[in-house]
Amino acid sequence: MIKMNIHFYSYSFIYTFRDMNAILLSIGDELLIGKTLNTNVNWMAQELNALGIDVVRMITLSDRHEDILWRLDNAIAEAHIVLITGGLGPTSDDITKDVLIEYFASEVAYDEKALQNIEALYQRRNRAITQSIKDMALLPTNCKPIYNGMGTAPGMLFDVGGRVVASMPGVPYEMKDMMQHTVLPYLKSRFDLPIILHKHILTAGKGETEIAQKIESVESELPSHIRLAYLPDVGKVKLRLTARGSDKIALDADMDKFTNDIVALLGKDVYGYDEDIYEEVIGKLLIDRKLQLVTAESCTGGYIAHRITSVSGSSAYFKGSVVAYSNAIKESVLGVSQHTLTEYGAVSEVCVAEMLIGALEALQGDIAIAVSGIAGPNGGTEDKPVGTVVIGIATKYNQQVKKFSFTNNRHRNIQLSGIIALEMLRRNLVEEKYSGTTLL
Amino acid sequence: MIKMNIHFYSYSFIYTFRDMNAILLSIGDELLIGKTLNTNVNWMAQELNALGIDVVRMITLSDRHEDILWRLDNAIAEAHIVLITGGLGPTSDDITKDVLIEYFASEVAYDEKALQNIEALYQRRNRAITQSIKDMALLPTNCKPIYNGMGTAPGMLFDVGGRVVASMPGVPYEMKDMMQHTVLPYLKSRFDLPIILHKHILTAGKGETEIAQKIESVESELPSHIRLAYLPDVGKVKLRLTARGSDKIALDADMDKFTNDIVALLGKDVYGYDEDIYEEVIGKLLIDRKLQLVTAESCTGGYIAHRITSVSGSSAYFKGSVVAYSNAIKESVLGVSQHTLTEYGAVSEVCVAEMLIGALEALQGDIAIAVSGIAGPNGGTEDKPVGTVVIGIATKYNQQVKKFSFTNNRHRNIQLSGIIALEMLRRNLVEEKYSGTTLL
Repeated sequence: MIKMNIHFYSYSFIYTFRDMNAILLSIGDELLIGKTLNTNVNWMAQELNALGIDVVRMITLSDRHEDILWRLDNAIAEAHIVLITGGLGPTSDDITKDVLIEYFASEVAYDEKALQNIEALYQRRNRAITQSIKDMALLPTNCKPIYNGMGTAPGMLFDVGGRVVASMPGVPYEMKDMMQHTVLPYLKSRFDLPIILHKHILTAGKGETEIAQKIESVESELPSHIRLAYLPDVGKVKLRLTARGSDKIALDADMDKFTNDIVALLGKDVYGYDEDIYEEVIGKLLIDRKLQLVTAESCTGGYIAHRITSVSGSSAYFKGSVVAYSNAIKESVLGVSQHTLTEYGAVSEVCVAEMLIGALEALQGDIAIAVSGIAGPNGGTEDKPVGTVVIGIATKYNQQVKKFSFTNNRHRNIQLSGIIALEMLRRNLVEEKYSGTTLL
Repeated sequence: MIKMNIHFYSYSFIYTFRDMNAILLSIGDELLIGKTLNTNVNWMAQELNALGIDVVRMITLSDRHEDILWRLDNAIAEAHIVLITGGLGPTSDDITKDVLIEYFASEVAYDEKALQNIEALYQRRNRAITQSIKDMALLPTNCKPIYNGMGTAPGMLFDVGGRVVASMPGVPYEMKDMMQHTVLPYLKSRFDLPIILHKHILTAGKGETEIAQKIESVESELPSHIRLAYLPDVGKVKLRLTARGSDKIALDADMDKFTNDIVALLGKDVYGYDEDIYEEVIGKLLIDRKLQLVTAESCTGGYIAHRITSVSGSSAYFKGSVVAYSNAIKESVLGVSQHTLTEYGAVSEVCVAEMLIGALEALQGDIAIAVSGIAGPNGGTEDKPVGTVVIGIATKYNQQVKKFSFTNNRHRNIQLSGIIALEMLRRNLVEEKYSGTTLL
């Protein structure tokens, strides 16, 4: 090993502190060879941001002693908080703990609670415990142990010289357990952090630009302590309002006001808030209106049914689907006429209209979705290029059928067809037009 | 700005060079706040590894002048190759190019080809071009320009003092285009890299441990220049053989030998090699055997049909599916008897056997998959806890129905049911038992 003199804050001149800062160190060769995607730092950054802590750097490094020691010293020099993941296992390439013991010049001793946790876990799994496994409970005496609710290796939290250093396993669910139960609560009580509030407004069916135009008047009057972010996804846009300050009551009132102002402008574009799940929102609308949904799918090949049934409890409002990938099934099970198929083709408004009627009948539903299209990349014609998709919804009383032109990408076409079909359904359910004479 | 003296290799004592090394710098606040997951470094690490270049560190940093300058100097001090992504756009927070110009003490001039590319792209999009957009083509005169085949901002490659520094946009597809067309070819010709060969053996239906036991005799005799890695996924294990050396003919022969040895031990566990896609392999088997597939899905809710139709050309061998989420549809469309449903329940071998017959008939298929189970998290009973799933496949001549006990997680149960059903199908197709009197 190369010997070096370690000084705290050896080049702290670089960074000018404004808010609380954190540096994230990820240790592990599996990250450096690209075997494992580093999702840990992404999650940790979101959680720290939510507390008002700025992540100023993320560093991924190998399981080498000098490398870890040097990066740790640099990180402590530049940030209030250093969070380390990885290198805490029982094998010889797990050296993070050794480096921390050396760096913080600590004695070690077995931690009883950590040892019991390890022994209990091995007993449950009915596996023999070895000395190197037990030694995971051998912790520096000047750290606060971070107990592992999801595995064996304990973490360590050091609070020295105004800096907090926490070391956790690299396994995502073990790290998250430690962050949520120990590290984040510790940081909250240890530092004088601002109050940060988040509110998510969930929209579907409109693009980012259209949403931005609709709410321009609210956005332009937002005070500087409230920020608005657009988080677009396929067919959906999530709006995130973030308020930062010290007076919780005033912040709450601000957030309510601006949320209400935005929702008033967006109307039915809004399907929910915060953790609401789109498919669950549709499920609740169907339950409220006592409607049984059925689908008839050609180019989406079961994707819509899969989306609907991804939600627990969907059997209360979803009866089933006919995936009519071949024309033979469109005829035999859904009763589409041969005339329609030869005259207009399977990708036509007429065919989808008949698929809707057939699905309502064959599956005895109250409301139906039907889709037929050319997902591609092959199968397109001049009249009907790849990406042509016809989508319809219907009740016994009325139908709505629309033709779309999507992309050249098969996967994207299937995804877009699904989300647009579900959105046509949701809008009609919200409007309660399903039992009237017209659909939207 | 804080002034500092910049010296190349200012602390190169830390890292001992063995092979060619690279450091990856990712620049952008969207990464540090956790808004964007950094998939770039993962992909880049894989590509560099495939060339025999070791990534020794990945650093994510903010769009601050001093920060970029300092990290760049450190990185050049420690690695042969420094690849930078992000901060090349036309807005004021994009400062990577300015830092590089300062660091490499360069003059700047418009690059004609880059300027033409930008102008052509704006013309195609029918958008007005501004001076700051044009200035993206203003490049350091001592760099090799990296042209952008997928967007506007050009990249820069510097080859100074034995080190190669390349700067690319953070947009993944622009970065990949530049890596594949310019940076990787440049590194290959510039450095004396080892020959590295990869071979992937794709298996399904067996766990990592079982696979490891089967091929233990081969693994234990692998020479040191050939490594074997296990890459497990749900229901599948990918084996990666990597050979490293200087004699391509000898390496090719080694790889062939060990691939053949492994495949001989694994037999039908192997479904393909390298880029083969599981669903496509099944499709080819069905086409070869001139069989039309149909499915009857309860708890998987269309997931199996969705997996099958995710592949282009699947209409040649997939007729369709009945997603019989309600018992009413199991009866009316699939002809499951009321007696079966009341006596044995929907999640039973008897019911799945009848679903198979019903699917073959109603959808006029040659071979059928049927699945019924309790995906959870609700709906379990003492007899049939959450995770109980019955899966069957059948032809007109015979059936195979099996009961499984999976997990408490809905999403995982649906996924496992799908992959196991498809794997039962694949094994039977490979064995060509589908027309005999017994299934596997």
